[in-house]
Amino acid sequence: MSDLPFRRVVVIGAGLMGTSVGLALRRAGVEVFLEDLDPANLRVAVSLGAGKPLLTDAGTAAETEAEVDLAVVGVPPAALGRVIADALARFPAATVTDLGSVKAAPLTDAGTHAAASLDRYVGGHPMAGSEHSGPLAARADLFDGRAWAVTAHPQSRTDAVETVEALALACGAFPVRLTPAQHDERVALVSHLPQVASTVVAGMLTGAAEDHLVLAGQGLRDVTRIAGGDPELWTQILSANAEPVARLLHEVADKMHQAALTLEKLEPASSAVDDLRRSLERGVTGVGRLPGKHGARPGVFAAVPVPLPDQPGELARLFADVSAAGVNIEDVRIDHSPGTPAGLVELSVHQGAVPALLEALARHGWDVHG
Amino acid sequence: MSDLPFRRVVVIGAGLMGTSVGLALRRAGVEVFLEDLDPANLRVAVSLGAGKPLLTDAGTAAETEAEVDLAVVGVPPAALGRVIADALARFPAATVTDLGSVKAAPLTDAGTHAAASLDRYVGGHPMAGSEHSGPLAARADLFDGRAWAVTAHPQSRTDAVETVEALALACGAFPVRLTPAQHDERVALVSHLPQVASTVVAGMLTGAAEDHLVLAGQGLRDVTRIAGGDPELWTQILSANAEPVARLLHEVADKMHQAALTLEKLEPASSAVDDLRRSLERGVTGVGRLPGKHGARPGVFAAVPVPLPDQPGELARLFADVSAAGVNIEDVRIDHSPGTPAGLVELSVHQGAVPALLEALARHGWDVHG
Repeated sequence: MSDLPFRRVVVIGAGLMGTSVGLALRRAGVEVFLEDLDPANLRVAVSLGAGKPLLTDAGTAAETEAEVDLAVVGVPPAALGRVIADALARFPAATVTDLGSVKAAPLTDAGTHAAASLDRYVGGHPMAGSEHSGPLAARADLFDGRAWAVTAHPQSRTDAVETVEALALACGAFPVRLTPAQHDERVALVSHLPQVASTVVAGMLTGAAEDHLVLAGQGLRDVTRIAGGDPELWTQILSANAEPVARLLHEVADKMHQAALTLEKLEPASSAVDDLRRSLERGVTGVGRLPGKHGARPGVFAAVPVPLPDQPGELARLFADVSAAGVNIEDVRIDHSPGTPAGLVELSVHQGAVPALLEALARHGWDVHG
Repeated sequence: MSDLPFRRVVVIGAGLMGTSVGLALRRAGVEVFLEDLDPANLRVAVSLGAGKPLLTDAGTAAETEAEVDLAVVGVPPAALGRVIADALARFPAATVTDLGSVKAAPLTDAGTHAAASLDRYVGGHPMAGSEHSGPLAARADLFDGRAWAVTAHPQSRTDAVETVEALALACGAFPVRLTPAQHDERVALVSHLPQVASTVVAGMLTGAAEDHLVLAGQGLRDVTRIAGGDPELWTQILSANAEPVARLLHEVADKMHQAALTLEKLEPASSAVDDLRRSLERGVTGVGRLPGKHGARPGVFAAVPVPLPDQPGELARLFADVSAAGVNIEDVRIDHSPGTPAGLVELSVHQGAVPALLEALARHGWDVHG
């Protein structure tokens, strides 16, 4: 991992995401400094081994700030724009990125505070998380095999974009380039809509008597798991992406009313039964379109299994070799066969890209039985 | 397990549920006969060790049918009433139960066909399943630690009710007595509503371009997992419980429209932000009310850990000892620490019942460090 475009990284905000980035970078042998307004968060993150405090009791050595070449902002959405602008000012030599769930609004904010140096900012959003928050929930492998959206804007410097992509790779994720608007449109569908749906279904349980819930099974637990997420955080996320999310919510609400009306006019012979069956079939089709859904991956994709030595940076090396070969990874699954040190990585790529992928992997010494 | 009120069981319908019951009963040393209209299903279930075919090439020995003392009907909801009535006629000495997800409609159906012998029928519904169907997805431990609704009707014989509760215990589940109407009302909330919500959210994915879904994370996968369930089966389930489900769907749809309107009138200072935060907080509260949600169990419950020898029937013996002590189990969690043969069962009971529980467990030789 010695060819990383950064040697000294500052993580601002030692919550779940920031601390996990710190742990992942330390795992990759990178020097990490941490900062958090909450001294308790900072203490926990440091004790977990996510990095060293940036501010010592003696204050910060100016040369340290001057020598920071990557600043990662992991603060709540409402504060992102301001803290990104601060980071651009405090770390004049650094590329600045963030871990926020929404990308367009913070970019606009940051621009109003630091238009001149905005070329060193490139947005980022690792598609991983937990319904738990805070540094105690952090994990070095939180991002392994996950997509990491990298959202350059028109003024972004090319080297800054490459630095943020290298950050994603170093954390075990695979970078996906999107514009901020594209990102926000997509997470509205794949993240924010399911969050609100989960929240509303979970909210219905508050009305039920205690013993009504004894019949609750795994299905309900799965559907409502993410509803346990931090309400303040999600208030900020949804507020920052209100328009696309609202549009989807209206659409889903209409479909639910429709499903109810269908049920109400059900008689055995009724064509409403077919409507109901069709909507259930649409759901199955939708699930099947999710990348990495076992046995449900669309035929245009092929899965190439690669045995992975369980050493720091191996996954990053794999992704780097693959993207160097110009092959686009659609999805990644990682199996850790219990007991054995090595894991198995399943790279999902378009059928047409398989030959190039196998050639590149073989050339870089990966043991492929694709 | 020698004190079971049944020695010879017939399972009619060798799908996921029926085959799993067969496997669980064989695990408990019970003689099981299997029947399925689809010879392929039957072959698979028999090869998995779920039981012997009831109908041999030589036909069925009449004495076998006469000696069946429990018939378990595991067929799709639309066929339940008729097959239950058939079973009451074919197995004159047997208690008849079923595994259906809806209880009121099949009872009415069965009554129209077999009113006279309906006293030997007691409905059942194990709260376990899979988004996969068919005997290949069956597991002997599918019901371990799960609730199993036992729905007696006014004419049900007491010994028949006890036989079905013994079936639940023998399969590793804990029985929960409800009327058919109570059951249907509750599964509408904890099972059928989440199913439709998951289906509708998953259906939204069918419109998205392939590469829009690369950002999909675990949250979306969890919310949409059960949407992969068999559309035909769910069409029948929802049709058979249409009225309670439709009422809940209208309510959820209204809440989603409301959430969308809230987002649309969001400005930083707006009170809509508080509305949004409140609805998200309601979701967290709802999840917290789910029994067995780690660290989220209401304070009125206490969790008593019991180490469990990993032998067939031990879980059933535990539940039997507990219910013999008149203690009501609110929820059960089972941890299998990998590598070790024994598991840990966490029995969740009302605070007040803890002393009685500990006393009963100690008396029956369970090693309790409650």
